[in-house]
Amino acid sequence: MAAEHISKTSEAYPMKGGDGVHSYANNSYYQRGVIDTAKKLITDEIADKLDLKNIVLSNTFRIADLGCSVGPNTFFAVQNIIEAVKCKPQCEGFDPQLLEFQVFFNDHASNDFNTLFTSAPPDRQYYAAGVAGSFYCRLFPNDSLHFVHSSYAIHWLSRVPKLIVDKSSPAWNKGRIHISNTEDEVVKAYEAQYAEDMDCFLHARAQEVVCGGLIALIVRGRPNDALHSQTHVNILYDLLGSCLMDMARKGIISEEKVDSFNVPTYSMSPQELVVAVNRNGEFSVERIDMLARVTETSNLPKSQILASHFRAALDGLIKEHFGDVILDELFESFRKKLEQEFPLTKSGRSINFFALLKRKAKH
Amino acid sequence: MAAEHISKTSEAYPMKGGDGVHSYANNSYYQRGVIDTAKKLITDEIADKLDLKNIVLSNTFRIADLGCSVGPNTFFAVQNIIEAVKCKPQCEGFDPQLLEFQVFFNDHASNDFNTLFTSAPPDRQYYAAGVAGSFYCRLFPNDSLHFVHSSYAIHWLSRVPKLIVDKSSPAWNKGRIHISNTEDEVVKAYEAQYAEDMDCFLHARAQEVVCGGLIALIVRGRPNDALHSQTHVNILYDLLGSCLMDMARKGIISEEKVDSFNVPTYSMSPQELVVAVNRNGEFSVERIDMLARVTETSNLPKSQILASHFRAALDGLIKEHFGDVILDELFESFRKKLEQEFPLTKSGRSINFFALLKRKAKH
Repeated sequence: MAAEHISKTSEAYPMKGGDGVHSYANNSYYQRGVIDTAKKLITDEIADKLDLKNIVLSNTFRIADLGCSVGPNTFFAVQNIIEAVKCKPQCEGFDPQLLEFQVFFNDHASNDFNTLFTSAPPDRQYYAAGVAGSFYCRLFPNDSLHFVHSSYAIHWLSRVPKLIVDKSSPAWNKGRIHISNTEDEVVKAYEAQYAEDMDCFLHARAQEVVCGGLIALIVRGRPNDALHSQTHVNILYDLLGSCLMDMARKGIISEEKVDSFNVPTYSMSPQELVVAVNRNGEFSVERIDMLARVTETSNLPKSQILASHFRAALDGLIKEHFGDVILDELFESFRKKLEQEFPLTKSGRSINFFALLKRKAKH
Repeated sequence: MAAEHISKTSEAYPMKGGDGVHSYANNSYYQRGVIDTAKKLITDEIADKLDLKNIVLSNTFRIADLGCSVGPNTFFAVQNIIEAVKCKPQCEGFDPQLLEFQVFFNDHASNDFNTLFTSAPPDRQYYAAGVAGSFYCRLFPNDSLHFVHSSYAIHWLSRVPKLIVDKSSPAWNKGRIHISNTEDEVVKAYEAQYAEDMDCFLHARAQEVVCGGLIALIVRGRPNDALHSQTHVNILYDLLGSCLMDMARKGIISEEKVDSFNVPTYSMSPQELVVAVNRNGEFSVERIDMLARVTETSNLPKSQILASHFRAALDGLIKEHFGDVILDELFESFRKKLEQEFPLTKSGRSINFFALLKRKAKH
């Protein structure tokens, strides 16, 4: 078991903690919107696909939210799941109303668990626990989870692909911070890292989830027919990369620092997910659905909103690589560029999709 | 269930977090010594009293350490327990070597869980989770724990007894911060709070611990025949209280602030614990043993060590009540007073004792 724990090195990029102006807690209502659009799907799937009587052997239903960050979104998501389970009808004397719920909130050890714990709803109907560690590793005992949820998290890879920071490799990603406008060795390196990570994710979950248990994934991804270079986030990373290069030209940071900086995220397509699930073999794909676009409710300029969201998500990553003095200037120049390049950013393709996996019977 | 969660208001007094010079992590080797002296007792009791085959129905053995603080002591304690369980012989085909372990580290939500998670041993043989909340409330699902451990934590009451901060009450504890040299209404108020808290503790655990499951308590207490005023900690609190009164006389803090400040700890006797367990009725007392005095290994002056230990434990409590500016001066004057009054502090009576409770069969 210990071997499993350390079998995969994983880097940590927690969202910005606390509850300040730049915090993830205050800059994640887009992700909240995505969770809301997935709510009905989860409710329906729990009603249809969850065979409570046969999977819950004690009276405790165990849920994990992987990559939960600091809230409040994770609390909404978990509440949805619990309500859906409780709404299932009694079956052969098994009453879902009598279930107790234990919820495991997972994120990296450097995630702000203290903010998470202190902001958990005081009237919650479940026993809460925090689990620190990468979801690309084992986190829970065998057959201990009934429902796994992960929203807007699995696009984070376990690490920056090694080759793209290797100067001697054809995949060296000089002057860019993501896939950018290339469809080349860099893309291959990202794809390989994604495939390896997804295998680890599914392998770990296959052991932890009981037979008949469900995994609901809400994924920030790309359409099956879209190139990485065409995705919305990639266009935004391109702009952010150009802001960093501007700062390098001004001598505020070194160009070498920009060369060695890459964002370890990957926009998977639904098709790629299906391939990974089939390769693993332990889950069936019960449903894949596109999620409706989230309508922006804020009155702030779009550029401001996007810049704030990116800052909340990338804060730790950028701080670790460049130090924290550049943050204000970088995101102000990013905001300005977003304003200027608004038509360009609109052209990007992206989707959010929902996938439901079910653990097959064990042999 | 939610009602249970909120049925008891509990104040939080976490140990000093982080890993700085005043942190609990660096000022708790006395507590480490206590854990070490209890190690053999726990090992023996697990060998004798734990009927693994009949209590572990899945393959996961679940342990909780209640009031774990930030480590490293909790990691030693948990490791002891796991080793003892694994050492049990195979029995009717049940092999303890094949068990998986899940460990729940519990403390108040304001405990420094991030330090706890990042300092957990990387080669640990268990799945770790953090659970935030008062152990005087429900924290876990029914029948979900096999072994509960709590060391040097249960002397913290859930709150300061109401009457001792009520000016109109005969128990008003003016000018003192603990029981001091009185055996009067103040003592009665502390006793009543202890009895209520212990009832809550045992009631919650009775639901969470499986039949045949064990609770190991390591208690900072007083001998059966000792008055509260004679205890070692009480004498020390008396000195600390007099330091606060000195500061009030100098005008650094107000006397009223000292009047309203009280330390919510209680030194129970083994006999009092037995009475509480019998009143609850769901556990048997399998063993009570005095623990040998911990030998001091540090070369620092005794006064310095005691002052540092008290500071690590009381930091949050004092900061909340008086603000943090007084901390350095207070503990320096406490250290000096300890130096001057060394013979007095030596006269105090105190014990550490070990108690093992076993969950009776349920009706």
